[in-house]
Amino acid sequence: MCFVKDTLNGDNMIIAVDGMGGDNAPVEIVKGAVAASEQIPHRICILGPEEIIEEELKKYSYDKEKIFVRNTTQIIDNCDSPVRAVRSKKDSSMVAGINMLKSDDAQLFISAGNTGALMAGSLIILDRISGIERPAIASSYPILKAKGSKISLMVDSGANSECKARNLLEFAIMGSIYMEKVIGIDNPKVGLVNIGEEEIKGTATIKEAYGLLKESGLNFVGNVEAREIPKGAVDVVVCDGFVGNVILKLTEGFAGQITRLLKDKLTDGVLAKIGAAFLYGKMKDMKKLFDYSEYGGAPILGVRGAVVKTHGSANANAVKNTIIKGIAYAENNVVELIEESAVNLEETVGSID
Amino acid sequence: MCFVKDTLNGDNMIIAVDGMGGDNAPVEIVKGAVAASEQIPHRICILGPEEIIEEELKKYSYDKEKIFVRNTTQIIDNCDSPVRAVRSKKDSSMVAGINMLKSDDAQLFISAGNTGALMAGSLIILDRISGIERPAIASSYPILKAKGSKISLMVDSGANSECKARNLLEFAIMGSIYMEKVIGIDNPKVGLVNIGEEEIKGTATIKEAYGLLKESGLNFVGNVEAREIPKGAVDVVVCDGFVGNVILKLTEGFAGQITRLLKDKLTDGVLAKIGAAFLYGKMKDMKKLFDYSEYGGAPILGVRGAVVKTHGSANANAVKNTIIKGIAYAENNVVELIEESAVNLEETVGSID
Repeated sequence: MCFVKDTLNGDNMIIAVDGMGGDNAPVEIVKGAVAASEQIPHRICILGPEEIIEEELKKYSYDKEKIFVRNTTQIIDNCDSPVRAVRSKKDSSMVAGINMLKSDDAQLFISAGNTGALMAGSLIILDRISGIERPAIASSYPILKAKGSKISLMVDSGANSECKARNLLEFAIMGSIYMEKVIGIDNPKVGLVNIGEEEIKGTATIKEAYGLLKESGLNFVGNVEAREIPKGAVDVVVCDGFVGNVILKLTEGFAGQITRLLKDKLTDGVLAKIGAAFLYGKMKDMKKLFDYSEYGGAPILGVRGAVVKTHGSANANAVKNTIIKGIAYAENNVVELIEESAVNLEETVGSID
Repeated sequence: MCFVKDTLNGDNMIIAVDGMGGDNAPVEIVKGAVAASEQIPHRICILGPEEIIEEELKKYSYDKEKIFVRNTTQIIDNCDSPVRAVRSKKDSSMVAGINMLKSDDAQLFISAGNTGALMAGSLIILDRISGIERPAIASSYPILKAKGSKISLMVDSGANSECKARNLLEFAIMGSIYMEKVIGIDNPKVGLVNIGEEEIKGTATIKEAYGLLKESGLNFVGNVEAREIPKGAVDVVVCDGFVGNVILKLTEGFAGQITRLLKDKLTDGVLAKIGAAFLYGKMKDMKKLFDYSEYGGAPILGVRGAVVKTHGSANANAVKNTIIKGIAYAENNVVELIEESAVNLEETVGSID
């Protein structure tokens, strides 16, 4: 049951959702897709074994014009080797979803599945944007503030463990375009993660990247030490995928540890329990600030299509937010804008090969 | 006024303290040294311009048998280039202090000064331990728990931005000896920071290091993802100095941000203010858990002497704790034990050259 494009109403798009990816599929994925559907004008195509997805959908009342199922028979799980899985499981919900982008049967694809396979599939099926050697995963880093919150974008957050200076420049360019066009930050500040503020600090690669960034025409504000990241010192945090992964996971672990500690400390003893009761509402506010499911998913940048990864343990709320916040990635010509910038990149730092 | 060794009472040692290193020198350094002196049997030699240090000491009543000054005329600051500073400022408080270790006029040296210069000076004056290619800085990473707290040791935390697999093995060996002999952790668990738990994850260097660690005879428990570090998953956290620096600084920045946020959130509104009053004692407990000055300094491991770096912005309490907690580094033959292990290392992974 494949959707025919010319039934699209006006500018509405189709959002393909991998119904079988992640720890909580299909239950939370379907629930999140239904919730998103109520808030957006676009149609959602959930991919997965038809009987399984339809069974989940039966739990909800939803607009059948806006949600439909595309049957797939295979599943890529976290134990699968990425490239092999993409090549051998052509009728998986993930590969079929990426193919919908390729054929323009969908304009946005969301998956909570195997990150390596999602990256490999995007590269193999959609191809990289000309001039971009290393597509990257860009994650939202929540900036905790008492009044309101915002995000920084961390590129790369795990796709490329080892990078050349040129790749770090690519991340900076792609991240800047995304922050400007999708998140709406004017002239986003770009910082290079380093072990000191001075230009001479860090590895040979980092020093070379500093030079490229300084000449890039981006709003490069220099090196950023890790202690400045949680303060929101920059909008685009540029680093290799090893460091980005360490930063994201450390933040996640530390926030979890603090939350447990607060709970224990603040409810230990009678006086503290009374105090905690008074503070209950405030603590709930704060928990929300820590909650990654509020911030949408992580776009894969540098491939020829709008693919967004959501957390492997995403709940329905995270899936809903990833879908809703992902729409701007597809709508704002980010792929085309990256392509234009990458042409300039080839002129300044040379072609990839 | 140089101390003559044979006036030592019994096994007491001399602790040399750089009176002019760090942002708060000499005020907080001298204050911390006086406070430490009251709690230990050892003598403390404060290095710096005599008139400046004596002027500070006048503020306190202290045992003149236990604290003495060694006059130096030069100062190494954070703008100095490390190697050049060590070579050209031979009468600086830092270089003179390291020389006291070399001549066995002191058995422990503490400095809050320029980290690069302290490392360079230790290497040039004391030399590396035979078989150790890359001495490292080992920092305490506080593990936040509701009941009691402990530390993990992060090696390297900033001295070596780029490392070979062999160096990571050296860090693991040195960190294990330090945790066992100085911190008193029996058979310490060693983890390699990586972007996944599986042996096949990470860069080529990390994979090679995994193989070396598996065969090392250490209590190697495998890769550790950054989210597990704040939970205290391992006792010795092994990583290159770039990643170690990012982990420490991110933790510092995040803890600071959370503390500010807590303060704002929990005192915003009348009910919350009443609650916060009830919780006051608990919040003070928690602040102490975050306080780096409680955890002592960072030993330089792999050089032929007990050198300990304390935070550049160390206050008197941090200086006091660094002195007191540093004593076990000098007392427990850590240098000799590392040397013995490094001999075995040469047999298994070959010599450095």
